[in-house]
Amino acid sequence: VTSTGKAAINDCAQHALWTERATRSPMQEAQERLAQPGIISFSLGLPGTDLFPTGEFAKACGAVLEANPQALQYGPPSHELKSHIVSLMRARGVSCHERQVFLTNGAQQGLHLIISLLLDRGRQIIAENISYPGFHQIVGFYEPEVLPVSTDPKTGMDVDKVEWYLAKGMRPAFVYAIPDGHNPFGVSMSVEKRSRLLALAEYYRFVIVEDDPYGSLFYSDPPANPMRALCGHRVYYVGSFSKILAPSLRIGWLVVPDHLVPYLSIIKEACDIHVASFSQHLVAHLLNSGFLTRHVEGLRSEYRRRRNTMLAALSRQFPSDAEWESPDCGIYIWLRLPKHINATRLLDLAASQHAVAFMPGSVFCIHSEPSAASSLRLNFSYPSMARIDEGMLRLGAAVSSAEKRSTRGRAMSRGSTI
Amino acid sequence: VTSTGKAAINDCAQHALWTERATRSPMQEAQERLAQPGIISFSLGLPGTDLFPTGEFAKACGAVLEANPQALQYGPPSHELKSHIVSLMRARGVSCHERQVFLTNGAQQGLHLIISLLLDRGRQIIAENISYPGFHQIVGFYEPEVLPVSTDPKTGMDVDKVEWYLAKGMRPAFVYAIPDGHNPFGVSMSVEKRSRLLALAEYYRFVIVEDDPYGSLFYSDPPANPMRALCGHRVYYVGSFSKILAPSLRIGWLVVPDHLVPYLSIIKEACDIHVASFSQHLVAHLLNSGFLTRHVEGLRSEYRRRRNTMLAALSRQFPSDAEWESPDCGIYIWLRLPKHINATRLLDLAASQHAVAFMPGSVFCIHSEPSAASSLRLNFSYPSMARIDEGMLRLGAAVSSAEKRSTRGRAMSRGSTI
Repeated sequence: VTSTGKAAINDCAQHALWTERATRSPMQEAQERLAQPGIISFSLGLPGTDLFPTGEFAKACGAVLEANPQALQYGPPSHELKSHIVSLMRARGVSCHERQVFLTNGAQQGLHLIISLLLDRGRQIIAENISYPGFHQIVGFYEPEVLPVSTDPKTGMDVDKVEWYLAKGMRPAFVYAIPDGHNPFGVSMSVEKRSRLLALAEYYRFVIVEDDPYGSLFYSDPPANPMRALCGHRVYYVGSFSKILAPSLRIGWLVVPDHLVPYLSIIKEACDIHVASFSQHLVAHLLNSGFLTRHVEGLRSEYRRRRNTMLAALSRQFPSDAEWESPDCGIYIWLRLPKHINATRLLDLAASQHAVAFMPGSVFCIHSEPSAASSLRLNFSYPSMARIDEGMLRLGAAVSSAEKRSTRGRAMSRGSTI
Repeated sequence: VTSTGKAAINDCAQHALWTERATRSPMQEAQERLAQPGIISFSLGLPGTDLFPTGEFAKACGAVLEANPQALQYGPPSHELKSHIVSLMRARGVSCHERQVFLTNGAQQGLHLIISLLLDRGRQIIAENISYPGFHQIVGFYEPEVLPVSTDPKTGMDVDKVEWYLAKGMRPAFVYAIPDGHNPFGVSMSVEKRSRLLALAEYYRFVIVEDDPYGSLFYSDPPANPMRALCGHRVYYVGSFSKILAPSLRIGWLVVPDHLVPYLSIIKEACDIHVASFSQHLVAHLLNSGFLTRHVEGLRSEYRRRRNTMLAALSRQFPSDAEWESPDCGIYIWLRLPKHINATRLLDLAASQHAVAFMPGSVFCIHSEPSAASSLRLNFSYPSMARIDEGMLRLGAAVSSAEKRSTRGRAMSRGSTI
């Protein structure tokens, strides 16, 4: 190899173009922060570790392995598990068939597969500007034109704006919605908005991707039916056992029109062959006993108490200078602080000086938005009531010291925010 | 909505373009065939179900759940499991660090993630024309220009052809190789070819994706070291527990340069958050006991017996009109039948009339190839010795009746093949 020869050779080993615009995931940063000794975390959407039915799991593992060595083999999707999912969907008002159920590695893979099915590079999609970052991550690979809509804290997605885009001639590959226990707002979409969105979907013939990991976790009356209950061919439904059983199994599901299942099978096999058979068998076994219904009732009672504890603490800590709603569903409260508080900088202060963490609002934005910059998402399913009380005291102290710095800062420079 | 209004509206709900050229997966067809009553299957690359260590698994499940309820929670990749993987790699001659190990849902997702990292749409790649269809499936989504090379049944990949492409100015995003126990040929690449391919990689600065699910399953001397043992920055290694422990857990790993791990984390999180924590803990627990080394030794003994049983049957059934090699590694034998036998049609006959199945050679081709059309892949890890004997009798009978039909056919039409 002469030096001329060397110079003439292009380097083949460049990486794919997306790596140039890749940014670190806020969820992974929050996950690392969890390991900080003594920290109380309201950051991530984790179920309460203390509520996992470990005894039931241990029994189920033994029973599955004894009954069926095929549980350790490659295998087709479990028909038994699909039947259980059909029953779960029925309890949510959705009528569907095993042929329409597709098993995934949690809801995140469900979204990934549906997006692969619907989206070509550069197409338009409609989504709430403040919504689940895992959705932004996966659509980001397709560099879509995202047409953003806002979210009302009491009634959910701005369906007027959806209609406005469509009337202007926009043709989205799909509309993304989290109708129940919205992430991060905690709001459930009003029945009227659900009907209007569905009517638009029929008229303009678009698909709604209905992301529903939280719909079974309601705290007063059961929520409105999922949109899938009203329309089988325009709504592609994404469900998950992560929040109601255990995230570590990575089992979720889709409910889609029958004729799409073969396409999903092709993508799924290319991505990772199939959902872990052992996990499938395990969940099917747990559901055989009728255990899940009781377990979810227990989760609802406990999460309701945790939510109430957090709401009471909010009222004590933030008597006048902050806003929030009481969520009827899901595991999040969206806290709006005064505009001069920057939630990202508040997190640095809160985590380092007060040993408490949350998700700053900007993490959830597709296009950055001033209202989100001073807001934050608080999760109430993971910490115990005692830790919620203690953590909210710490958060109140962090906001107070941010306020003081901000006042000093404004007095000095007339402009900077913490 | 007036009828004019309706007609003016474009349908948003078209699917992504790839769905128009999607074809059914041959592995899924083979999986369905497995369910045919009484069939003996040599089709898929399944481990022997009878060899799964179900007792060890049951004990490990109980121990993991008792010790650590975090096993059911979302969680970061298990450092303990990564350490075990570093030790496993050391036993294969590879020196690497936990920071370079990335956990995946089996080798298939490992390939998927590396390809996402390396490949932009339409780029060139170099691959053996006859190779693992799961690789073809996943690269297919990127519509690459595949530069095919052939495979020598005794020494592996045609490295001369690789050099020819590079000398002609081709600049592949990577070269894909299965150096040990090749799928479908069963061949392991010669040491000389490994060195030459690495020298080319250094000279032309390309990356080798080294797919190694079978390297621990060797039947005489341990095979040559993986290419990763010789080069840490040009070889991205793909490993898996599927063939040596259990596929249903979906645990595999990558060994890549440290600086790529953050990019892999981003894709992985977007795809499905993370590898099932419970499976990670389970495998780590099983490996703590040193159990895996003994288990793999047991698999090697048994698979060697199964391979020998199949080789003996081949000698009995196909005394003169077929060719095959004895594989020193892996779980496949590549059987070349006379040219006038079409293996795809033979499979229809064999499965329907003789209750035996295999993978027809054409399934493994990127560009169709006459030599593959009359060849087939036989797996010897899944069936017991008794079933191999019986299945090979059935296969012999199927080939005989195909030969008879072919002779009659040729006498009648001078051209058609079964």
